[in-house]
Amino acid sequence: MSVHRFKGERTLMRIFIGESDKFDGRPLHEALLDRLRQRGLAGATVLRGVAGFGASARVHGQDLLRFSRDLPLVVEVVETEEAIQAVLPDLDEMIGGGLITLERAGVIMYRPRDVRPSQRELHRIEGLEPEA
Amino acid sequence: MSVHRFKGERTLMRIFIGESDKFDGRPLHEALLDRLRQRGLAGATVLRGVAGFGASARVHGQDLLRFSRDLPLVVEVVETEEAIQAVLPDLDEMIGGGLITLERAGVIMYRPRDVRPSQRELHRIEGLEPEA
Amino acid sequence: MSVHRFKGERTLMRIFIGESDKFDGRPLHEALLDRLRQRGLAGATVLRGVAGFGASARVHGQDLLRFSRDLPLVVEVVETEEAIQAVLPDLDEMIGGGLITLERAGVIMYRPRDVRPSQRELHRIEGLEPEA
Repeated sequence: MSVHRFKGERTLMRIFIGESDKFDGRPLHEALLDRLRQRGLAGATVLRGVAGFGASARVHGQDLLRFSRDLPLVVEVVETEEAIQAVLPDLDEMIGGGLITLERAGVIMYRPRDVRPSQRELHRIEGLEPEA
Repeated sequence: MSVHRFKGERTLMRIFIGESDKFDGRPLHEALLDRLRQRGLAGATVLRGVAGFGASARVHGQDLLRFSRDLPLVVEVVETEEAIQAVLPDLDEMIGGGLITLERAGVIMYRPRDVRPSQRELHRIEGLEPEA
Repeated sequence: MSVHRFKGERTLMRIFIGESDKFDGRPLHEALLDRLRQRGLAGATVLRGVAGFGASARVHGQDLLRFSRDLPLVVEVVETEEAIQAVLPDLDEMIGGGLITLERAGVIMYRPRDVRPSQRELHRIEGLEPEA
Protein backbone atom coordinates (compact mmCIF):
# COMPACT_ATOMS: atom_id res chain seq x y z
CA MET A 1 0.00 0.00 0.00
CA SER A 2 1.32 3.44 -0.90
CA VAL A 3 1.51 5.10 2.47
CA HIS A 4 3.64 7.67 4.27
CA ARG A 5 4.60 6.70 7.78
CA PHE A 6 5.47 9.17 10.53
CA LYS A 7 6.60 8.59 14.07
CA GLY A 8 6.71 10.73 17.21
CA GLU A 9 4.80 11.74 20.31
CA ARG A 10 1.32 13.11 20.86
CA THR A 11 -1.04 13.91 23.70
CA LEU A 12 -4.07 11.67 24.16
CA MET A 13 -7.02 13.64 25.55
CA ARG A 14 -10.10 11.77 26.73
CA ILE A 15 -13.24 13.75 27.66
CA PHE A 16 -15.75 11.90 29.88
CA ILE A 17 -19.25 13.37 29.60
CA GLY A 18 -22.86 12.18 29.62
CA GLU A 19 -24.95 11.52 26.54
CA SER A 20 -27.71 13.88 27.70
CA ASP A 21 -25.32 16.78 28.44
CA LYS A 22 -26.17 19.85 26.41
CA PHE A 23 -24.39 22.94 25.12
CA ASP A 24 -26.34 25.79 23.58
CA GLY A 25 -29.44 23.62 23.32
CA ARG A 26 -27.82 20.73 21.45
CA PRO A 27 -26.02 17.53 22.48
CA LEU A 28 -22.67 18.45 24.03
CA HIS A 29 -20.73 15.76 22.18
CA GLU A 30 -21.94 17.06 18.81
CA ALA A 31 -21.05 20.62 19.81
CA LEU A 32 -17.62 19.39 20.95
CA LEU A 33 -16.96 17.60 17.64
CA ASP A 34 -17.90 20.73 15.70
CA ARG A 35 -15.69 22.93 17.86
CA LEU A 36 -12.71 20.58 17.69
CA ARG A 37 -13.00 20.49 13.93
CA GLN A 38 -13.38 24.28 13.68
CA ARG A 39 -10.23 24.66 15.76
CA GLY A 40 -8.39 22.53 13.24
CA LEU A 41 -7.77 19.44 15.38
CA ALA A 42 -6.72 16.38 13.43
CA GLY A 43 -9.46 14.05 14.56
CA ALA A 44 -11.79 12.86 17.29
CA THR A 45 -13.58 9.65 18.15
CA VAL A 46 -16.71 9.41 20.31
CA LEU A 47 -17.15 6.12 22.22
CA ARG A 48 -20.46 5.39 23.93
CA GLY A 49 -20.57 3.38 27.11
CA VAL A 50 -23.24 0.72 27.63
CA ALA A 51 -23.34 1.38 31.38
CA GLY A 52 -21.69 3.48 34.09
CA PHE A 53 -22.11 5.94 36.90
CA GLY A 54 -20.78 9.33 37.86
CA ALA A 55 -19.38 10.12 34.41
CA SER A 56 -20.88 13.58 34.41
CA ALA A 57 -23.20 14.52 37.29
CA ARG A 58 -25.74 11.73 37.28
CA VAL A 59 -26.10 8.32 38.89
CA HIS A 60 -27.39 5.31 37.00
CA GLY A 61 -29.43 2.59 38.67
CA GLN A 62 -28.94 -1.14 38.42
CA ASP A 63 -31.24 -1.24 35.46
CA LEU A 64 -29.13 1.23 33.59
CA LEU A 65 -28.68 -0.98 30.55
CA ARG A 66 -32.38 -0.91 29.87
CA PHE A 67 -33.67 2.43 31.05
CA SER A 68 -30.88 4.96 31.25
CA ARG A 69 -31.16 8.00 29.06
CA ASP A 70 -27.75 9.29 30.11
CA LEU A 71 -25.12 6.80 29.13
CA PRO A 72 -21.49 7.87 29.43
CA LEU A 73 -19.56 9.12 26.39
CA VAL A 74 -15.80 9.30 25.93
CA VAL A 75 -14.48 11.74 23.31
CA GLU A 76 -10.91 10.86 22.32
CA VAL A 77 -8.43 13.17 20.62
CA VAL A 78 -4.80 12.46 19.66
CA GLU A 79 -3.00 15.74 18.95
CA THR A 80 0.06 17.88 19.63
CA GLU A 81 0.31 19.23 23.17
CA GLU A 82 0.04 22.75 21.71
CA ALA A 83 -3.22 21.97 19.87
CA ILE A 84 -4.67 20.42 23.03
CA GLN A 85 -3.68 23.40 25.21
CA ALA A 86 -5.12 25.80 22.62
CA VAL A 87 -8.53 24.12 22.69
CA LEU A 88 -8.85 23.76 26.51
CA PRO A 89 -10.47 27.22 26.99
CA ASP A 90 -13.23 26.10 24.61
CA LEU A 91 -13.77 22.96 26.67
CA ASP A 92 -13.88 25.03 29.89
CA GLU A 93 -16.67 27.04 28.32
CA MET A 94 -18.65 24.06 27.06
CA ILE A 95 -18.40 21.32 29.70
CA GLY A 96 -20.74 21.73 32.68
CA GLY A 97 -19.74 18.57 34.53
CA GLY A 98 -17.26 15.88 33.62
CA LEU A 99 -13.67 14.89 33.46
CA ILE A 100 -10.75 15.21 31.05
CA THR A 101 -7.66 13.00 31.16
CA LEU A 102 -4.39 13.91 29.43
CA GLU A 103 -1.59 11.44 28.68
CA ARG A 104 1.53 11.42 26.53
CA ALA A 105 1.74 8.58 24.02
CA GLY A 106 4.06 7.41 21.30
CA VAL A 107 2.38 7.64 17.92
CA ILE A 108 2.71 6.13 14.45
CA MET A 109 0.73 7.90 11.76
CA TYR A 110 -0.15 6.49 8.34
CA ARG A 111 -1.06 8.91 5.58
CA PRO A 112 -2.01 7.82 2.06
CA ARG A 113 0.38 9.22 -0.58
CA ASP A 114 -2.54 10.15 -2.82
CA VAL A 115 -4.47 12.01 -0.12
CA ARG A 116 -6.67 14.84 -1.40
CA PRO A 117 -5.65 18.39 -0.42
CA SER A 118 -8.81 18.82 1.65
CA GLN A 119 -7.83 15.80 3.72
CA ARG A 120 -4.24 16.83 4.33
CA GLU A 121 -5.05 18.84 7.44
CA LEU A 122 -6.58 15.74 8.98
CA HIS A 123 -3.20 14.09 9.18
CA ARG A 124 -1.04 16.82 10.54
CA ILE A 125 2.52 15.82 10.99
CA GLU A 126 4.21 18.67 12.89
CA GLY A 127 7.00 17.27 14.97
CA LEU A 128 6.70 13.77 13.57
CA GLU A 129 9.58 12.06 11.75
CA PRO A 130 8.92 10.67 8.30
CA GLU A 131 10.09 7.11 7.74
CA ALA A 132 10.99 5.17 4.65
CA MET B 1 -21.53 28.06 32.59
CA SER B 2 -21.17 28.10 36.38
CA VAL B 3 -18.58 25.44 36.92
CA HIS B 4 -15.73 24.70 39.31
CA ARG B 5 -12.55 23.50 37.63
CA PHE B 6 -9.92 21.35 39.32
CA LYS B 7 -6.59 20.11 38.04
CA GLY B 8 -4.21 17.37 39.10
CA GLU B 9 -3.30 13.74 38.59
CA ARG B 10 -5.30 10.55 38.74
CA THR B 11 -4.90 6.85 37.96
CA LEU B 12 -6.73 5.45 34.96
CA MET B 13 -7.74 1.83 35.56
CA ARG B 14 -9.10 -0.22 32.68
CA ILE B 15 -10.57 -3.68 33.36
CA PHE B 16 -10.78 -6.02 30.33
CA ILE B 17 -13.38 -8.75 30.82
CA GLY B 18 -15.93 -10.68 28.74
CA GLU B 19 -19.60 -9.84 28.47
CA SER B 20 -20.63 -13.36 29.55
CA ASP B 21 -18.37 -13.41 32.63
CA LYS B 22 -20.35 -13.92 35.82
CA PHE B 23 -19.93 -13.17 39.51
CA ASP B 24 -22.32 -14.62 42.05
CA GLY B 25 -24.73 -15.64 39.31
CA ARG B 26 -25.02 -12.24 37.65
CA PRO B 27 -23.11 -10.40 34.91
CA LEU B 28 -19.63 -9.52 36.19
CA HIS B 29 -19.68 -6.00 34.80
CA GLU B 30 -22.89 -5.20 36.66
CA ALA B 31 -21.47 -6.66 39.87
CA LEU B 32 -18.30 -4.60 39.33
CA LEU B 33 -20.25 -1.35 38.85
CA ASP B 34 -22.20 -2.00 42.05
CA ARG B 35 -19.05 -2.80 44.03
CA LEU B 36 -17.17 0.23 42.72
CA ARG B 37 -20.07 2.46 43.68
CA GLN B 38 -20.40 0.83 47.12
CA ARG B 39 -16.69 1.46 47.69
CA GLY B 40 -17.27 5.13 46.99
CA LEU B 41 -15.39 5.42 43.72
CA ALA B 42 -16.12 8.58 41.78
CA GLY B 43 -17.29 6.98 38.56
CA ALA B 44 -17.01 4.19 36.03
CA THR B 45 -17.72 3.73 32.34
CA VAL B 46 -18.36 0.38 30.63
CA LEU B 47 -17.38 0.20 26.95
CA ARG B 48 -18.49 -2.76 24.86
CA GLY B 49 -16.35 -4.05 22.05
CA VAL B 50 -17.90 -5.08 18.73
CA ALA B 51 -15.28 -7.80 18.20
CA GLY B 52 -12.14 -9.24 19.75
CA PHE B 53 -10.34 -12.28 21.05
CA GLY B 54 -8.67 -13.36 24.23
CA ALA B 55 -10.16 -10.58 26.36
CA SER B 56 -11.04 -12.98 29.13
CA ALA B 57 -10.55 -16.70 28.56
CA ARG B 58 -12.44 -17.30 25.32
CA VAL B 59 -11.61 -17.21 21.64
CA HIS B 60 -13.96 -15.67 19.11
CA GLY B 61 -14.27 -17.02 15.58
CA GLN B 62 -14.15 -15.08 12.36
CA ASP B 63 -17.88 -14.68 12.51
CA LEU B 64 -17.70 -13.03 15.88
CA LEU B 65 -19.58 -9.95 14.82
CA ARG B 66 -22.66 -11.99 14.08
CA PHE B 67 -22.65 -14.91 16.49
CA SER B 68 -20.53 -14.19 19.50
CA ARG B 69 -22.21 -14.17 22.84
CA ASP B 70 -19.06 -13.08 24.63
CA LEU B 71 -17.98 -9.71 23.35
CA PRO B 72 -15.21 -7.92 25.23
CA LEU B 73 -16.03 -5.22 27.78
CA VAL B 74 -13.72 -2.52 29.10
CA VAL B 75 -14.60 -0.95 32.46
CA GLU B 76 -12.84 2.39 32.92
CA VAL B 77 -12.28 4.19 36.21
CA VAL B 78 -10.44 7.49 36.84
CA GLU B 79 -9.61 7.83 40.54
CA THR B 80 -6.93 8.58 43.12
CA GLU B 81 -4.19 5.94 43.37
CA GLU B 82 -5.33 5.28 46.96
CA ALA B 83 -8.94 4.60 45.92
CA ILE B 84 -7.73 2.25 43.17
CA GLN B 85 -5.41 0.35 45.50
CA ALA B 86 -8.19 0.05 48.08
CA VAL B 87 -10.56 -1.58 45.60
CA LEU B 88 -8.07 -4.05 44.05
CA PRO B 89 -8.77 -6.82 46.64
CA ASP B 90 -12.42 -6.70 45.58
CA LEU B 91 -11.41 -7.09 41.95
CA ASP B 92 -9.13 -10.03 42.85
CA GLU B 93 -12.15 -11.70 44.41
CA MET B 94 -14.53 -11.03 41.53
CA ILE B 95 -12.52 -11.41 38.30
CA GLY B 96 -12.03 -15.01 37.15
CA GLY B 97 -10.06 -14.27 34.00
CA GLY B 98 -9.06 -10.97 32.49
CA LEU B 99 -6.69 -8.08 32.59
CA ILE B 100 -6.37 -4.75 34.37
CA THR B 101 -4.20 -1.88 33.14
CA LEU B 102 -3.13 1.01 35.37
CA GLU B 103 -1.79 4.33 34.09
CA ARG B 104 -1.12 7.76 35.55
CA ALA B 105 -2.85 10.64 33.76
CA GLY B 106 -3.22 14.36 34.13
CA VAL B 107 -6.81 15.28 34.87
CA ILE B 108 -9.10 18.29 34.61
CA MET B 109 -12.36 17.95 36.51
CA TYR B 110 -15.46 20.09 35.99
CA ARG B 111 -18.03 20.23 38.78
CA PRO B 112 -21.26 22.25 38.59
CA ARG B 113 -21.44 24.93 41.34
CA ASP B 114 -25.05 24.00 42.08
CA VAL B 115 -24.39 20.26 42.45
CA ARG B 116 -26.76 18.51 44.86
CA PRO B 117 -25.23 17.13 48.10
CA SER B 118 -25.95 13.55 47.01
CA GLN B 119 -23.87 14.09 43.90
CA ARG B 120 -20.89 15.67 45.61
CA GLU B 121 -19.20 12.36 46.30
CA LEU B 122 -19.26 11.63 42.59
CA HIS B 123 -16.81 14.40 41.91
CA ARG B 124 -14.23 13.93 44.59
CA ILE B 125 -11.45 16.41 44.45
CA GLU B 126 -8.84 15.20 46.96
CA GLY B 127 -5.44 16.32 45.82
CA LEU B 128 -6.74 18.41 42.93
CA GLU B 129 -6.08 22.14 42.72
CA PRO B 130 -9.07 24.45 42.32
CA GLU B 131 -8.76 27.00 39.55
CA ALA B 132 -10.44 30.34 38.93
CA MET C 1 -12.43 -18.05 42.79
CA SER C 2 -9.47 -20.21 41.80
CA VAL C 3 -7.36 -17.76 39.90
CA HIS C 4 -3.67 -17.07 39.29
CA ARG C 5 -2.70 -13.45 39.55
CA PHE C 6 0.29 -11.91 37.79
CA LYS C 7 1.67 -8.39 37.92
CA GLY C 8 4.01 -6.36 35.74
CA GLU C 9 4.20 -3.98 32.79
CA ARG C 10 2.82 -4.11 29.29
CA THR C 11 2.46 -1.89 26.24
CA LEU C 12 -1.02 -0.65 25.34
CA MET C 13 -1.39 -0.25 21.57
CA ARG C 14 -4.45 1.50 20.19
CA ILE C 15 -5.07 1.47 16.43
CA PHE C 16 -7.45 4.19 15.13
CA ILE C 17 -8.98 3.25 11.78
CA GLY C 18 -12.29 3.64 9.94
CA GLU C 19 -15.03 1.05 9.78
CA SER C 20 -15.06 1.09 5.98
CA ASP C 21 -11.28 0.66 5.62
CA LYS C 22 -10.37 -2.46 3.66
CA PHE C 23 -7.44 -4.82 3.38
CA ASP C 24 -7.32 -7.43 0.65
CA GLY C 25 -10.99 -6.87 -0.14
CA ARG C 26 -12.28 -7.39 3.40
CA PRO C 27 -12.88 -5.13 6.40
CA LEU C 28 -9.51 -3.98 7.77
CA HIS C 29 -10.45 -4.55 11.40
CA GLU C 30 -11.34 -8.18 10.70
CA ALA C 31 -8.08 -8.66 8.81
CA LEU C 32 -6.20 -7.04 11.71
CA LEU C 33 -7.83 -9.34 14.29
CA ASP C 34 -6.91 -12.39 12.22
CA ARG C 35 -3.33 -11.24 11.77
CA LEU C 36 -2.87 -10.36 15.45
CA ARG C 37 -4.15 -13.80 16.40
CA GLN C 38 -1.95 -15.54 13.81
CA ARG C 39 1.06 -13.68 15.22
CA GLY C 40 0.25 -15.11 18.63
CA LEU C 41 -0.79 -11.91 20.37
CA ALA C 42 -2.62 -12.42 23.65
CA GLY C 43 -5.78 -10.54 22.82
CA ALA C 44 -7.45 -7.63 21.09
CA THR C 45 -10.61 -5.59 21.58
CA VAL C 46 -12.37 -3.60 18.86
CA LEU C 47 -14.33 -0.55 20.05
CA ARG C 48 -16.66 1.22 17.64
CA GLY C 49 -17.22 4.94 17.87
CA VAL C 50 -20.70 6.42 17.50
CA ALA C 51 -19.32 9.57 15.89
CA GLY C 52 -16.04 11.24 14.96
CA PHE C 53 -13.95 12.83 12.26
CA GLY C 54 -10.51 12.36 10.78
CA ALA C 55 -9.93 8.93 12.29
CA SER C 56 -8.68 7.51 9.03
CA ALA C 57 -8.85 9.64 5.90
CA ARG C 58 -12.50 10.69 5.83
CA VAL C 59 -14.56 13.53 7.22
CA HIS C 60 -17.97 12.98 8.76
CA GLY C 61 -20.74 15.54 8.49
CA GLN C 62 -22.93 16.88 11.25
CA ASP C 63 -25.43 14.15 10.58
CA LEU C 64 -22.84 11.45 11.10
CA LEU C 65 -24.83 9.64 13.76
CA ARG C 66 -27.56 8.88 11.31
CA PHE C 67 -25.94 8.57 7.92
CA SER C 68 -22.27 7.81 8.24
CA ARG C 69 -21.03 4.58 6.80
CA ASP C 70 -17.53 5.11 8.11
CA LEU C 71 -17.60 5.29 11.87
CA PRO C 72 -14.24 5.23 13.70
CA LEU C 73 -12.91 2.00 15.19
CA VAL C 74 -10.28 1.61 17.91
CA VAL C 75 -8.46 -1.74 18.08
CA GLU C 76 -6.82 -2.19 21.49
CA VAL C 77 -4.01 -4.61 22.32
CA VAL C 78 -2.20 -5.10 25.66
CA GLU C 79 1.04 -7.02 25.10
CA THR C 80 4.77 -7.17 25.73
CA GLU C 81 6.79 -4.46 24.01
CA GLU C 82 8.54 -7.23 22.02
CA ALA C 83 5.27 -8.68 20.72
CA ILE C 84 4.07 -5.20 19.72
CA GLN C 85 7.34 -4.38 17.90
CA ALA C 86 7.21 -7.74 16.12
CA VAL C 87 3.75 -7.09 14.72
CA LEU C 88 4.32 -3.48 13.59
CA PRO C 89 5.61 -4.47 10.10
CA ASP C 90 2.31 -6.26 9.54
CA LEU C 91 0.40 -3.14 10.53
CA ASP C 92 2.56 -1.02 8.18
CA GLU C 93 1.53 -3.34 5.38
CA MET C 94 -2.16 -3.36 6.21
CA ILE C 95 -3.09 0.16 7.35
CA GLY C 96 -3.65 2.67 4.53
CA GLY C 97 -4.55 5.67 6.69
CA GLY C 98 -4.86 5.98 10.43
CA LEU C 99 -3.05 6.31 13.67
CA ILE C 100 -1.44 4.06 16.28
CA THR C 101 -0.74 5.14 19.86
CA LEU C 102 1.68 3.26 22.13
CA GLU C 103 1.78 3.64 25.92
CA ARG C 104 3.37 1.76 28.82
CA ALA C 105 0.96 0.61 31.51
CA GLY C 106 1.06 -1.36 34.72
CA VAL C 107 -0.87 -4.59 34.36
CA ILE C 108 -2.57 -7.16 36.59
CA MET C 109 -3.52 -10.39 34.85
CA TYR C 110 -5.98 -12.98 36.12
CA ARG C 111 -5.78 -16.51 34.74
CA PRO C 112 -8.10 -19.33 35.79
CA ARG C 113 -6.20 -22.23 37.40
CA ASP C 114 -8.18 -24.76 35.36
CA VAL C 115 -7.58 -23.09 32.02
CA ARG C 116 -7.49 -25.49 29.05
CA PRO C 117 -4.14 -25.90 27.26
CA SER C 118 -5.52 -24.29 24.08
CA GLN C 119 -6.32 -21.18 26.07
CA ARG C 120 -3.00 -20.90 27.82
CA GLU C 121 -1.40 -18.91 25.05
CA LEU C 122 -4.14 -16.31 25.43
CA HIS C 123 -2.82 -15.35 28.82
CA ARG C 124 0.85 -15.15 28.28
CA ILE C 125 2.77 -14.19 31.32
CA GLU C 126 6.34 -13.56 30.18
CA GLY C 127 7.94 -11.02 32.45
CA LEU C 128 5.02 -10.91 34.87
CA GLU C 129 5.42 -11.84 38.53
CA PRO C 130 3.10 -14.47 39.96
CA GLU C 131 1.39 -13.53 43.20
CA ALA C 132 -0.10 -15.58 45.99
